[in-house]
Amino acid sequence: MSELRKDPITGRWVIISTERGKRLSDFRIETVTIQPDPGCPFCEGHEQMTPRELLARRHDGTGANGPGWDLRVVPNQFPVLRVEGVLDRQGEGLFDKMNGIGAHEVIIESPKHDDTLATMSDAAVEQVLWAARDRIQDLKRDRRFRYIIVFKNHGAAAGASLDHPYSQLIALPIVPREVHDEMEGARAHFVSKERCVFCDVIAQEERDGRRLIADNGDMVAIAPYAPRFPFETWILPKRHQSLFEDAPRHEYASLARMLRDMLRRMNRMLLSPPYNLLIHTAPLNEPAGDFYHWHVEIIPTLTKVAGFEWATGFYVNPTSPEEAAQVLRDTRA
Amino acid sequence: MSELRKDPITGRWVIISTERGKRLSDFRIETVTIQPDPGCPFCEGHEQMTPRELLARRHDGTGANGPGWDLRVVPNQFPVLRVEGVLDRQGEGLFDKMNGIGAHEVIIESPKHDDTLATMSDAAVEQVLWAARDRIQDLKRDRRFRYIIVFKNHGAAAGASLDHPYSQLIALPIVPREVHDEMEGARAHFVSKERCVFCDVIAQEERDGRRLIADNGDMVAIAPYAPRFPFETWILPKRHQSLFEDAPRHEYASLARMLRDMLRRMNRMLLSPPYNLLIHTAPLNEPAGDFYHWHVEIIPTLTKVAGFEWATGFYVNPTSPEEAAQVLRDTRA
Repeated sequence: MSELRKDPITGRWVIISTERGKRLSDFRIETVTIQPDPGCPFCEGHEQMTPRELLARRHDGTGANGPGWDLRVVPNQFPVLRVEGVLDRQGEGLFDKMNGIGAHEVIIESPKHDDTLATMSDAAVEQVLWAARDRIQDLKRDRRFRYIIVFKNHGAAAGASLDHPYSQLIALPIVPREVHDEMEGARAHFVSKERCVFCDVIAQEERDGRRLIADNGDMVAIAPYAPRFPFETWILPKRHQSLFEDAPRHEYASLARMLRDMLRRMNRMLLSPPYNLLIHTAPLNEPAGDFYHWHVEIIPTLTKVAGFEWATGFYVNPTSPEEAAQVLRDTRA
Repeated sequence: MSELRKDPITGRWVIISTERGKRLSDFRIETVTIQPDPGCPFCEGHEQMTPRELLARRHDGTGANGPGWDLRVVPNQFPVLRVEGVLDRQGEGLFDKMNGIGAHEVIIESPKHDDTLATMSDAAVEQVLWAARDRIQDLKRDRRFRYIIVFKNHGAAAGASLDHPYSQLIALPIVPREVHDEMEGARAHFVSKERCVFCDVIAQEERDGRRLIADNGDMVAIAPYAPRFPFETWILPKRHQSLFEDAPRHEYASLARMLRDMLRRMNRMLLSPPYNLLIHTAPLNEPAGDFYHWHVEIIPTLTKVAGFEWATGFYVNPTSPEEAAQVLRDTRA
């Protein structure tokens, strides 16, 4: 029988529809394959095809915007928001708007076109996380910004426009609604119990075990209790901390290891699926230290979701998190 | 330059990214084509392939569950929720769940496999709306249910599993979060202004004209100020009413005409796109008469949306509603 489950943070109900339960072989996965692209703007030697770099891990003796690097961060050539200008808030009768002030950057994760986070070294993935942290630390000094989203689309079906490995960072002058709802839910839990809801979730999942996928000391990977998507996976630091960018260095190393571990397990069991990876962290300049807890969400693209789900906020998930966790737990990375 | 805009009902901010602005020809639309299917369970003569009918518009002298009908409503053969049983609410430590009590029905809109709402008669579309109304009126007597979603997925890319024209109805023991947020926003507007926010939107759009697509006396079609998706279109009754199922009969006729009008314009300008159609109505047994206003949303599937948007609630729309409204306004249906 199906079950309705409530996410303890946002209060969102989902249906876990086991009657429609899909086996792994029922998902029509668009396995990600990387095509060579001689015109790829992110490949080493093509640095002139991107805007000038904001940050790079360069080999000794190399100059900016030329070859000889392990990672580069550049402004997005087709930004959804622009840094230049003064934030201008206006009303139009009932309606409210702002001009499109923000930042939109690209983290080029490797000079090699066919690298992926799963196949790169732990140290290289740690550098990607560290670059995200550095860019957040820089951008948060700009008082126009209220939230910074760091995310990765892997594979065309997950929204990637290029095969070359890259992540994106968008700094926003507003707090997105999903983040706002997560914050409000976490705040309400703290007000009622004087505890972080994420810490409570980690404690319960560690005790229970059915949705626990892995634990590497610093980081824990779980299938959340009320996932919207099959094989949705959360990675949380076990130590309470609201801001991703304030984590101690060794936690980036642990997160890199756990990320690669999960992505390799998914590649093996889910046939190298497209996926979205999102860093959830607290808004800038809003004290959330007690009640919010940064974490990472990985959502493999396994189902052709109808616009229906986006439009209603009402999700039907054909795979229970207990089943997803067991599959991933039993997989050797 | 891009613009951030806030939806006046939910408070959701979206980015209208005109710099990435797409022309109509840039959308890779998966034009809906209907394939013959000798094994289609919804075709006339195949009534034994569905569960027994709950409601039908039958020709004189025909018996239930046989041929001779214009429309049938049947339980979904693969329901996400089931009617049978007692609603059982349980806690699991931090977590909350219910068993999957609900109803999941299918409105078979026509006996003809290749009919579509756009090509059926006004009267036939009105019958579909009337059938939805009848089923809601029946289901709302069941006090376990708190919300009824009526929706249509047209075309595989929008989530349809069969080509035969059908809509779906799901009765839920909870109020979905998107509905909850719409209700809260509308309530807050009413508390502050003693007016319905939807009535205010209609008045402003009628005066302004830039986002107005059509007005047929009872119904108005607009491109909303802060749409998440390109060519997202709302149809609202001009007369205030919170519940779809309590509309007077002539409004179903007007809605049928407006629906067909919009779908035919979209077919012409957007190359017969897949789409989702949703009826937004107030929850059952929650007094919302003053502040909520039922309406219909049509969302053509034009962009390959990344999971990113679902996951963050943060939408980037490459087409401004002013442009979308102008295109549809200037199209002869």
